[in-house]
Amino acid sequence: MSINRVREALAKQGIDAVVASFGENIYYCSGLKTIPSVANRGLFNQSRISEAVFVVVPQSGEATLICSAGVAGVAEEQSHIKDIRFSGTGIYREYPAGGRPSIYASKAADVLVGVLKEKGLSEGRVGIEFSSISYSLGTRLTKEFPKVQFVDAKPVFTEARMIKTPWEIANIRNSVKAAEIALSAAIDVIGEGTKESDILQAYKRSLINQGLDWGTTSVGAGANSAETYNLGGSYAVKKGDVVRFDLGAITNGYFSDISRTVVLGRPSDTARRVYDAIYEAEQTMLSMVKPGALTGDIYEAGVSIVRKHGFLDYVRGNMGHGIGLVVHEEPDLVKGGQIVLEPGMVLAVEAPFYITGEFGMNVENNVIVTEKGYELLDTSLPTQLMVL
Amino acid sequence: MSINRVREALAKQGIDAVVASFGENIYYCSGLKTIPSVANRGLFNQSRISEAVFVVVPQSGEATLICSAGVAGVAEEQSHIKDIRFSGTGIYREYPAGGRPSIYASKAADVLVGVLKEKGLSEGRVGIEFSSISYSLGTRLTKEFPKVQFVDAKPVFTEARMIKTPWEIANIRNSVKAAEIALSAAIDVIGEGTKESDILQAYKRSLINQGLDWGTTSVGAGANSAETYNLGGSYAVKKGDVVRFDLGAITNGYFSDISRTVVLGRPSDTARRVYDAIYEAEQTMLSMVKPGALTGDIYEAGVSIVRKHGFLDYVRGNMGHGIGLVVHEEPDLVKGGQIVLEPGMVLAVEAPFYITGEFGMNVENNVIVTEKGYELLDTSLPTQLMVL
Repeated sequence: MSINRVREALAKQGIDAVVASFGENIYYCSGLKTIPSVANRGLFNQSRISEAVFVVVPQSGEATLICSAGVAGVAEEQSHIKDIRFSGTGIYREYPAGGRPSIYASKAADVLVGVLKEKGLSEGRVGIEFSSISYSLGTRLTKEFPKVQFVDAKPVFTEARMIKTPWEIANIRNSVKAAEIALSAAIDVIGEGTKESDILQAYKRSLINQGLDWGTTSVGAGANSAETYNLGGSYAVKKGDVVRFDLGAITNGYFSDISRTVVLGRPSDTARRVYDAIYEAEQTMLSMVKPGALTGDIYEAGVSIVRKHGFLDYVRGNMGHGIGLVVHEEPDLVKGGQIVLEPGMVLAVEAPFYITGEFGMNVENNVIVTEKGYELLDTSLPTQLMVL
Repeated sequence: MSINRVREALAKQGIDAVVASFGENIYYCSGLKTIPSVANRGLFNQSRISEAVFVVVPQSGEATLICSAGVAGVAEEQSHIKDIRFSGTGIYREYPAGGRPSIYASKAADVLVGVLKEKGLSEGRVGIEFSSISYSLGTRLTKEFPKVQFVDAKPVFTEARMIKTPWEIANIRNSVKAAEIALSAAIDVIGEGTKESDILQAYKRSLINQGLDWGTTSVGAGANSAETYNLGGSYAVKKGDVVRFDLGAITNGYFSDISRTVVLGRPSDTARRVYDAIYEAEQTMLSMVKPGALTGDIYEAGVSIVRKHGFLDYVRGNMGHGIGLVVHEEPDLVKGGQIVLEPGMVLAVEAPFYITGEFGMNVENNVIVTEKGYELLDTSLPTQLMVL
């Protein structure tokens, strides 16, 4: 979290103000974690809200948090922003101590329009999140502010968030350690007949006991290990099965993202061959992580090593990515990637390989780019193929 | 889930086809639970995705699921929809068995445009989710389909989802039972010095052990019990504290939502007075639940009973709401509510009362509207104020 990094990015990109509407960016700018949610966390790790919260950050001048009066107490406690405006709430409250927030009988979007006017943002360049704000709100803003040039706020947040503050790094470090402890607990329960769901349960129970949460947790055994987003169902592990983990933990909103592969009993020759390829790719890519390295070069090195092992068609959208408030954020390790690594970037470097109907394998490490090279964060579990 | 109910609603409302883009509606139409997520579940129970998945449901003719080829295996397993189109993926796969999906080198939105054209939906009335699709996509669709009258799809899904199928009811029933078991485990750990986070942990651990997930879990003790969305932090329970729970479980995407209030030691006179008021309101509202009852009448009855107890300003946005794939869905028990209850609706009936800085209390029950009245689902915990 760093509202200062957002202001710097605004100045650099010549934008007068930005409206944060994406959950992560609201938090990044304000510190507010809690949003009254009607969404279904059981089904989807994400779903949309109807513009309940915004943060307006001008290049200079005070930032404003807009949220429901229903979360007034929580917002005042969590946010460093002093100027909080509340939209209406259907929650009845008594205020015996007095001095509580006045409540506007309007929606958050109405409050937003008012705040933009008040801050003199009826003209100039204002960043909004094109892919996050709804069609209804986008249409309304362009109508109400005909003199404003609305630009995509995404580059502002990308630039701000790419370099982590020490506090952010501390959180990611904690998420990595927690995920390793939980993953170790999960591996411990694997045996013949263990269900995927039991393995996942052991993982989650460990994180609950550590007081932490998780994001997408992919766990698959046998042919399911080849399903990238397999969520751990009723399939029971058999002798010879590959079990692939791709998961993490979340500390104060900051992710880890690690992958390990386990085989129960003797790995097949193909499994050995695939793992040898991705392991060498991973080691090589890690060795390239340092300030000045180009993301595209790391990608190419990883892909070419897998190919060198005989998998000539191997190609990937990415061979890793930044991690932070989102589990995939810049800098992405992609073909032709032009981002130059800098100290303070945090990466998940990975080399996944899926053979549909047979098995999938991955090895993924989390590293901080340091002044001289990198620091490996996940050090307690082997990165070699684990044979149980 | 019931694609047939969606088709019926389309016919009734005179709409040719609907595009589901909201997570819950994608699941409701297709059965697909898994969406590749980059969102942060630790911070927000909701966040937006960039149009990765759509379902196109015509009033007549075959429905189409559009999703990333990266979830091909999972989509084919989970969805009853036979016509699945895949957008491109950066995930490398080998297909030794052959016959796997062809992958379009395009984004889901491109595939959507193609499918609409193919189905002859370049004119007529097409429902889209105005509050869910992004500004970018909405603008694109209105440009690419100048002859289409785009209407808000929300009323279609509201009507379809309001009456639950037996399978949906079975899931909600299970979520209620699971939440009661977990809540009981949470109450068991409450004592002097127990932290809110320990209470919440006991709740979550029980659900993990039952193989289930949860949505927003509000747990607060002392003054925090008055914070509607307090998430259970480091505050330690003291003698005389009110502890308020408002939480649920999720089974196959279907929610429960129950509230109970506990006091450690002797409740204050104010606490007694407030609970007497909300308890009587709750009992009266429950007794009114039956086919033919008007949502607004139930709301009025509940509010007026709280007022009768001397809290003359008491007013609420709602005194309960439907539950299903979202924890707040129609029919809402609101002022002037004109929805007539029908068998198969499932309600959370509640009477929350918050005194900022002092305490908050709630009693909330989940009921199914039956042919003759209602069936109470949460029967294992007392609804009276629990004094520990």
